[in-house]
Amino acid sequence: MTLDKKYEVEIKKLKQEVYDANMLLVKYGLVIHTWGNVSGITQDRKYMVIKPSGVSYDSLKPEDMVITDLDNNVIDSKYNPSSDTPTHTLLYKENPEIKGIVHTHSPNAVSFAQAGKDIPCFGTTHADNFYGPVPCARALSPQEINGQYEHNTGLVIIETFKSRKIDWKACSATLVKEHGPFAWSFKSPKDAVDLALTLEQVAKMAINTLIISNNNASSAQGALIEKHYNRKHGKNAYYGQKK
Amino acid sequence: MTLDKKYEVEIKKLKQEVYDANMLLVKYGLVIHTWGNVSGITQDRKYMVIKPSGVSYDSLKPEDMVITDLDNNVIDSKYNPSSDTPTHTLLYKENPEIKGIVHTHSPNAVSFAQAGKDIPCFGTTHADNFYGPVPCARALSPQEINGQYEHNTGLVIIETFKSRKIDWKACSATLVKEHGPFAWSFKSPKDAVDLALTLEQVAKMAINTLIISNNNASSAQGALIEKHYNRKHGKNAYYGQKK
Amino acid sequence: MTLDKKYEVEIKKLKQEVYDANMLLVKYGLVIHTWGNVSGITQDRKYMVIKPSGVSYDSLKPEDMVITDLDNNVIDSKYNPSSDTPTHTLLYKENPEIKGIVHTHSPNAVSFAQAGKDIPCFGTTHADNFYGPVPCARALSPQEINGQYEHNTGLVIIETFKSRKIDWKACSATLVKEHGPFAWSFKSPKDAVDLALTLEQVAKMAINTLIISNNNASSAQGALIEKHYNRKHGKNAYYGQKK
Amino acid sequence: MTLDKKYEVEIKKLKQEVYDANMLLVKYGLVIHTWGNVSGITQDRKYMVIKPSGVSYDSLKPEDMVITDLDNNVIDSKYNPSSDTPTHTLLYKENPEIKGIVHTHSPNAVSFAQAGKDIPCFGTTHADNFYGPVPCARALSPQEINGQYEHNTGLVIIETFKSRKIDWKACSATLVKEHGPFAWSFKSPKDAVDLALTLEQVAKMAINTLIISNNNASSAQGALIEKHYNRKHGKNAYYGQKK
Repeated sequence: MTLDKKYEVEIKKLKQEVYDANMLLVKYGLVIHTWGNVSGITQDRKYMVIKPSGVSYDSLKPEDMVITDLDNNVIDSKYNPSSDTPTHTLLYKENPEIKGIVHTHSPNAVSFAQAGKDIPCFGTTHADNFYGPVPCARALSPQEINGQYEHNTGLVIIETFKSRKIDWKACSATLVKEHGPFAWSFKSPKDAVDLALTLEQVAKMAINTLIISNNNASSAQGALIEKHYNRKHGKNAYYGQKK
Repeated sequence: MTLDKKYEVEIKKLKQEVYDANMLLVKYGLVIHTWGNVSGITQDRKYMVIKPSGVSYDSLKPEDMVITDLDNNVIDSKYNPSSDTPTHTLLYKENPEIKGIVHTHSPNAVSFAQAGKDIPCFGTTHADNFYGPVPCARALSPQEINGQYEHNTGLVIIETFKSRKIDWKACSATLVKEHGPFAWSFKSPKDAVDLALTLEQVAKMAINTLIISNNNASSAQGALIEKHYNRKHGKNAYYGQKK
Repeated sequence: MTLDKKYEVEIKKLKQEVYDANMLLVKYGLVIHTWGNVSGITQDRKYMVIKPSGVSYDSLKPEDMVITDLDNNVIDSKYNPSSDTPTHTLLYKENPEIKGIVHTHSPNAVSFAQAGKDIPCFGTTHADNFYGPVPCARALSPQEINGQYEHNTGLVIIETFKSRKIDWKACSATLVKEHGPFAWSFKSPKDAVDLALTLEQVAKMAINTLIISNNNASSAQGALIEKHYNRKHGKNAYYGQKK
Repeated sequence: MTLDKKYEVEIKKLKQEVYDANMLLVKYGLVIHTWGNVSGITQDRKYMVIKPSGVSYDSLKPEDMVITDLDNNVIDSKYNPSSDTPTHTLLYKENPEIKGIVHTHSPNAVSFAQAGKDIPCFGTTHADNFYGPVPCARALSPQEINGQYEHNTGLVIIETFKSRKIDWKACSATLVKEHGPFAWSFKSPKDAVDLALTLEQVAKMAINTLIISNNNASSAQGALIEKHYNRKHGKNAYYGQKK
């Protein structure tokens, strides 16, 4: 499929933005080899731009970013998109305000996914960024794995947020069991990558907290979580500068 | 509020010093994103200079540092000060000799705060710098959290040092429970940041010591703690060069 | 022994390739000092090229790479080859399609070898690259150690893969008990080093998974392992770009 | 005291060598701040050259290195020598072939010292470099601490090697309980620093081995330790190049 000319300027800008966000994964030390992928979306939410599958970051160029529609059709691109494309598109469709999505295999977050456990909210570093535990989704069934695997991965994430009544804005990251983290942003692809770094740092702190407490730490108290989340993200937020 | 002209030279120098100390947090790997903040104080202890809230280290400039008085009023500055400002000012008022204060979310120190435990004095690396365990303050009550939170954080630190009879000079760092470390210096903002790095290193060693000992390590013997603390900081200190 | 002129061009290219792969060990942080070694092989599998023994990476040059035949005779080279040479040559003889072999003392993989345990397949990061656990070979007997030690190391690796019916392509790495990892590639020496980095990352994640789960994590489910291994390496692989 | 002119050339060279070795501690990431110290000795073993006490690595210069005699008298130098000077001189006197000594607070080795445990010889990485466990010396008594502390530290190290019949050449490192590692070389100050890095890496691997084995790992088998130590350091050593 080919792209309508009217998207040319927007897509060029978005490719650069998505490329920059992908390269930030390398700068942050969140990926090795060809691991990880970041995507962004056009304003009308018709097209997604995402890292090509299995291409090394060393040789990656902004123009290599792949355009797809939200039904996972590749548009006017020479490369295959990330194999996780159907997970990305499903999350964009579920959440009409999400502007960027990132998937990594960052080691500390992956370790919680491999243990099949939520990242508990042990303190304010976590609560400043994620309201409550970062959930670990249930395992996919063999049928879900053998079917449309990446699409079903998205469905299981959505099921997790619905069944546990988690607000996508308040907790903009999840773990896929035995797999790894996804994070998303309501601002930009870059912001999603910033969150992925935060998640990795929070996961590292949680592992150390488990060691220090002999696997016996308890979640931070509710009032503290409320306070920290809200001083940064609430209606009367006072962290940061006036916008 | 505006600043009296007579402070111009001193404040300009202090802003540079506080800026340099904040950037040192990045160099030392103690912060990511906009996390962490360092402050300094004028000689007459009328004004504090501190990092602006939520501003990225990449774009930070010396002139962006925010001036406040010790009642947390912003003086002649375009940015909001760090949201932790009331904790800083309270500590400056409580300790008329403190010259610089730093707060970070460095992962190993935070992990002890999240586990709600003191960092035990397991050896001479610790004792060279902190006399006895680095205390973890008690949790704030929901009332303290929902009230003047950052001010109350300072009060709980002060309460900890008073009730446990800890000398602010001998142990110039603390952990705020489920939150993270504060450190201070009687010399300069830079020295406070150096202490924050020491604290992080000491916390890392303590975590590994717990692993090796199967969570069963005991504090270093008292005579050794005395010796190391005093050879560096005591009346007859012989570490370092004559001043 | 001297080298037939007809190999000149191929050997020169191979030395460069093997040198580059050895230097990549340093770039990836997998080795310190003179530790680690990478080898490659000529197309007719008559000659192997390998790092010289005990030479520092700082002073290493492409022409320093040592040529041996597959009976471990040094050909036309001024340096001694890596002391692990007989392990390499044996693996090349056992697997006529292997193109590159690497041995490191990377700390996380070594730690599993020291504990005498397989690296369990805890998730998709592992399954994307190694099908099933990365096996830890049995200990060598004192007789095997005191005899042709490096040759016997290769024999024990081969015994492990045979007795446990592991496919050399599906799992192209192993641990030698109380020693460390070997990895090999059916593509190139560089690819073997890429796998060694993957192995180290996977080992790190496995250690953290053990911590989080209180040493109680279970292997990822079979269907997920199948899926991930095959989407990258199976007949209908769809990860990456068309070749 | 002043230095005899006949030492001028040798001392100048030695100061450069000791300076380079001290700076290598920074490059290797084994020290922060002013921690750590390396020394070297003149050929006639009359003078030692060592890092000045408490001077930052950033501002250190070769000419700042301090000369002492083996009775700890400072010779012709503007700075105080490292406070650990009497430990160094005692080890030089005890071992007339030692050419360089290093003390660090590298975190993994310190953690074993803080836990008061030997670093077990879990595998070949260790055995390639240290024959058997790296011993942790007994705690100093309060009398020893309050007396000539640094001298007594040396005495306790010597007592440990004597009572446990450890060969200084076969195991050229030790841990001082609740303090940290010392390492020495029979070649050069630089080689001592290389050993300190090896020790830190080996300690890291040992910590991870304890985690993986649920604190239940056993020492590598004796034949393997013999083999690896001897293939590198024995009479028939075949690791490395002919000298």
